[in-house]
Amino acid sequence: MSQPGPSPALVFDTINAFQRTEALRAAIELDLFSHLVEGRRTAEQLGDACGASPRGTRILVDYLATLGFLDKHDNQYGLTPDAQVFLTRQSPAYMGQALEFLLTPQLRESFRLLPEAVRRGGTAVSDEGTVSHDNPVWVAFARGMAGLMQLPAKLLADLVGGDRQRPWRVLDVAAGHGMFGIAIAQQYPNARITALDWANVLAVAQENADRAGLASRFTQRPGSAFDIDWGGSYDLVLLTNFLHHFDLPTCETLAAKAFAALAPGGRAMTLEFIPNADRISPPGTAGFALVMLATTARGDAYTFAEYDALFTRAGFRRNEFHALPPTAQQAVVSFKE
Amino acid sequence: MSQPGPSPALVFDTINAFQRTEALRAAIELDLFSHLVEGRRTAEQLGDACGASPRGTRILVDYLATLGFLDKHDNQYGLTPDAQVFLTRQSPAYMGQALEFLLTPQLRESFRLLPEAVRRGGTAVSDEGTVSHDNPVWVAFARGMAGLMQLPAKLLADLVGGDRQRPWRVLDVAAGHGMFGIAIAQQYPNARITALDWANVLAVAQENADRAGLASRFTQRPGSAFDIDWGGSYDLVLLTNFLHHFDLPTCETLAAKAFAALAPGGRAMTLEFIPNADRISPPGTAGFALVMLATTARGDAYTFAEYDALFTRAGFRRNEFHALPPTAQQAVVSFKE
Repeated sequence: MSQPGPSPALVFDTINAFQRTEALRAAIELDLFSHLVEGRRTAEQLGDACGASPRGTRILVDYLATLGFLDKHDNQYGLTPDAQVFLTRQSPAYMGQALEFLLTPQLRESFRLLPEAVRRGGTAVSDEGTVSHDNPVWVAFARGMAGLMQLPAKLLADLVGGDRQRPWRVLDVAAGHGMFGIAIAQQYPNARITALDWANVLAVAQENADRAGLASRFTQRPGSAFDIDWGGSYDLVLLTNFLHHFDLPTCETLAAKAFAALAPGGRAMTLEFIPNADRISPPGTAGFALVMLATTARGDAYTFAEYDALFTRAGFRRNEFHALPPTAQQAVVSFKE
Repeated sequence: MSQPGPSPALVFDTINAFQRTEALRAAIELDLFSHLVEGRRTAEQLGDACGASPRGTRILVDYLATLGFLDKHDNQYGLTPDAQVFLTRQSPAYMGQALEFLLTPQLRESFRLLPEAVRRGGTAVSDEGTVSHDNPVWVAFARGMAGLMQLPAKLLADLVGGDRQRPWRVLDVAAGHGMFGIAIAQQYPNARITALDWANVLAVAQENADRAGLASRFTQRPGSAFDIDWGGSYDLVLLTNFLHHFDLPTCETLAAKAFAALAPGGRAMTLEFIPNADRISPPGTAGFALVMLATTARGDAYTFAEYDALFTRAGFRRNEFHALPPTAQQAVVSFKE
């Protein structure tokens, strides 16, 4: 066979990619996937359950099948494993509410202004973008992303290791929903979590801690991570999905603050999108840099070499890289000594 | 190895898919790909040529590399064959101007309202959507899509066959940019094209015909395909990217009008998105139904069985299906006798 020539398929697929976003959003808004769990199998049955027309439902579910969220046989639809786990309300890993954060009007607007962001080298929405003081987007974030963060939070907690009974003192910086500290508290029954974030965001983390039965081991430390004293003598300082919002000197300042807050033998644990040195792989990881360009002034997806260098300059003796499959994220564990 | 468990990757990829659209739009708006042809290779050089910051350019080109439009080696970027052919102004198949049609604000809005379109079974934007009378979107369409339609137009013209000198009388219904008729006129030096569309759209087709040196063999027939007389004794009636806007009874009315306008031995040639009977493959073809749900009251991507039935009911003796690789479109050739 001859080599296939150039094809417009990828270009069309990319231009039309926004349709995928909208189709999945529509399906989640209509709670279509949950109705499949309840035994509806045809477009007519599903439309009926969703309060939608048979025709509209049929076209939508066929489209979702082309994307890989549904199987279709003899005009009966079924959930793929990914859809079953992440898109049905009946699942503990349901991520429908994450759309509120992942598709906020601000985020859409920041991508609409992407050409200008490329020109100026940072978000075109405002000077500070999403990292502005008390930006309400972080309450939406804390509320929406908690379910979705259960998996990475568990994988990060798995990196802690050691004695299950040890009374870890954990500082969760920019805690948001609080899930990363909570996951450690769940694995270590004597661990105590201090969650640092703006007060309006911490209210959400507190709810999550209360719900997990961890109220007695959960302390709030309200304020900006840049302005307030972090306290001290922690065994673990968590920097999860935080450093990517800032430039490298700012990251180094935060790393130094983590170093100072750690007890001897303590560790900073950073969860991030950390692409390979080529900055284009893995695609789902490397692509996160674009979100930072669109929504922040100076944020980025840094490589391990960059994190290694900045944590070393901040005083840490040694830094370990950990992939966290099947998530698109990675961790850096930085040892104080 | 054990089977991989469910992964959030596809869900994230789909939620974030709109970012691909915006990244490609930004790159085309900045004319980034064309500057690569001109020998710029690094993010700095490209940013300089585009009037964009090195940082913003670096993040954008890395993202485009993750999508498969650029290669990257040693921080030097190069065009992939698809990008070279379809995304650089220097290429005759450049499709940058198609964005004006493929990403109109109306189209974006219709997808924003997709949940409501699913509920009601048709576009939520207006009663008629894009097929309303003299909708200016079709002038944007005619201007934007001409370049992109060169390939399918040539492939459709290849299906005509027969004597190169034959004086084909061709009616191009809802001609838009006119490229389908023009492609036949280019292959058959004695063919005469009658282009039918709203007058404001035909002005664009006339420009394209003039530019191709075909003015003497190109006639305008302005008006709505539903309202005006199509004339008669044509050898070929072209129905390209037209029937998908309507329900099947309306398609049948148009097929009957084509049948009546054809001379004995004539053929209707329909270019469409024609999915397999499962309606979910090929994905790029089947997925077009969602565009019709979002933007029209009753349009769809019909199967060959549906086209075969309606053209047969309209009087045609026999219908042939033709795939048109590498495009996502297909053709039906309907024989009057």
